Amino acid sequence: MLHRVRIALDAMGGDHGPAIVLAGAELSLLRHPGIEFVLYGDRAVIAPLLMVHARLQGARLVHTEVSVKMDEKPSQALRNGRWKSSMWLAIDAVKKGEADAAISAGNTGALMAMAKFHLKTMAGVERPAIAARWPTLTGAAVVLDLGATIGADAPHLVNLAVMGSAMAHILGDIARPKVGLLNIGVEEVKGLEPVREAGRILRETARPQLDYVGFVEGNDIGTGKVDVVVTEGFTGNIALKTAEGTAQQIAAYLKSAMGSSLRNKLGYLLARGAFNLLRQKMDPRKFNGGVFLGLNGVVIKSHGSTDAEGYSAAIDVGYEMVHQDLLSQIRHALGREVPAIPTTEAQAAGGAAS
Amino acid sequence: MLHRVRIALDAMGGDHGPAIVLAGAELSLLRHPGIEFVLYGDRAVIAPLLMVHARLQGARLVHTEVSVKMDEKPSQALRNGRWKSSMWLAIDAVKKGEADAAISAGNTGALMAMAKFHLKTMAGVERPAIAARWPTLTGAAVVLDLGATIGADAPHLVNLAVMGSAMAHILGDIARPKVGLLNIGVEEVKGLEPVREAGRILRETARPQLDYVGFVEGNDIGTGKVDVVVTEGFTGNIALKTAEGTAQQIAAYLKSAMGSSLRNKLGYLLARGAFNLLRQKMDPRKFNGGVFLGLNGVVIKSHGSTDAEGYSAAIDVGYEMVHQDLLSQIRHALGREVPAIPTTEAQAAGGAAS
Repeated sequence: MLHRVRIALDAMGGDHGPAIVLAGAELSLLRHPGIEFVLYGDRAVIAPLLMVHARLQGARLVHTEVSVKMDEKPSQALRNGRWKSSMWLAIDAVKKGEADAAISAGNTGALMAMAKFHLKTMAGVERPAIAARWPTLTGAAVVLDLGATIGADAPHLVNLAVMGSAMAHILGDIARPKVGLLNIGVEEVKGLEPVREAGRILRETARPQLDYVGFVEGNDIGTGKVDVVVTEGFTGNIALKTAEGTAQQIAAYLKSAMGSSLRNKLGYLLARGAFNLLRQKMDPRKFNGGVFLGLNGVVIKSHGSTDAEGYSAAIDVGYEMVHQDLLSQIRHALGREVPAIPTTEAQAAGGAAS
Repeated sequence: MLHRVRIALDAMGGDHGPAIVLAGAELSLLRHPGIEFVLYGDRAVIAPLLMVHARLQGARLVHTEVSVKMDEKPSQALRNGRWKSSMWLAIDAVKKGEADAAISAGNTGALMAMAKFHLKTMAGVERPAIAARWPTLTGAAVVLDLGATIGADAPHLVNLAVMGSAMAHILGDIARPKVGLLNIGVEEVKGLEPVREAGRILRETARPQLDYVGFVEGNDIGTGKVDVVVTEGFTGNIALKTAEGTAQQIAAYLKSAMGSSLRNKLGYLLARGAFNLLRQKMDPRKFNGGVFLGLNGVVIKSHGSTDAEGYSAAIDVGYEMVHQDLLSQIRHALGREVPAIPTTEAQAAGGAAS
């Protein structure tokens, strides 16, 4: 089946810029020939690269010389890059309905600020979140919020549960994803008040889209016990980075131990296949692609330092979100499908007046 | 040098009870012959075990039939176990000056509740913390708070920095431990307001006991970039458990990969020495022993499921804390050494009146 999905790429974003973005797009076209790409960035750099990638001949290129720097503050990026940067233009394409999703490997804070500013949050969602797949022993879990919004009241945590479930449903083809609230104990009396309150709400209100299983702890995330792990952005970001750091630390220990004697080196050579398996299991590229949730549009953040394969994983996530209509699923689950249009209009009017 | 350090053991605490506690105490006596143990618990179980452990002949045994259950809520434990449980009596020995430190592998929440209730917080410290060593590429860092107190204002975070530094100073023999505040970015504008405010205070007030280096992220904890990582208890607990979970997850991947073919199995056998090295590096027993900070007494929490070696590591931590006078170091660093006695009396009077 050929599904037409239009994806806007911020070709200038990321540590390696257009070379990786275009190579990643070519890889994704192998899997999803129905994608139509629009590339935003510097024609002088991108045009020659387009010649190299035969599959991208059909891609449209929109020239801009402005790009958001990796170290710009969100406020600076908005000031310098609004209306004209490659990042803004990719988001703008989604806003105007010219693209179904925008993808960038650029500055995360700037991307979130621009996406929020331009696309606005959905009716019923006050603050956006970033969600990504987290490798587990049984596959992958969706974990959110990874740092978009600091702090959360109970209704926001419930929204995160609903939005994360929609994403897990799409990515894992799970009818009713199991959802856990991240806490410092599994007993109902433990932890932060908003977390306990969100637990009460999720327990007492059955939802067809998700199966709330209770509190989970940090060591449950990687087990596959739940399909969705919900927490606010400060804790989520620290959990994610702590897990990444721990994986790097163990990899360093392992490398040093394997090189510590001739015998160990020989063993390593012999079991190279096993180490390759391990590397594959832990390969962060496979899990690349943070989904911005709660906005009126699909925006995906790729890791800035990833390679073509990693970038294509982020594109694939965007493709699935569009293809299986994440936004409608979330609106439906939030019970806002019918009144969505008038509410949005009212909000827009309120926004203009304020 | 023989230093007399009196340690009260809750012999009934932990998943395995007195057998592990006594075997651990015997191991610690090999390294620190100057420790005098007092054991609290059921004479019928402990007395026969004392016969087996020759080095423990000098230990005093105080009989009680009451012990705190691992699944009791703190409030229940206080109601059922106050005055008479082995856990309470060990803390009471510290309170009465009959022991220099209390150690328990029992119920963490109950231990903290009893310790806080009975020993009270130090002058200048409103809420206690739990701190432990975290393995790093260069050795170990002290991380706190691992879950004693949820949430923190800036002054509390500064207190954590001071107390954690005193512990790192003792354990790592570091004159001025490097301290980092855990945050979701290293820029000064990032993160929670109390964290930013604590950063300002630590930056602007030079302290002879610690070297504040700024914000650190989750992936910095294991690198050894800082000697002390400061965060409030909710985030700290989740970071710790996430790291433990990630280590278990990678160990599971590694085990499965190594067993996945005859060739890999042979490689594993050949490089067994390297895997033993890795296991040692990651051995949680070496880092066992959570120190309760901010109380008028030294209390150490051992992991409930540890073995004799792990338990003895917790005893050793308690020994060092007493031997190098953690409490005076903290009081001095908090600038409360001189007015400590009147302030404490005033607090006690206030506490009795309230």
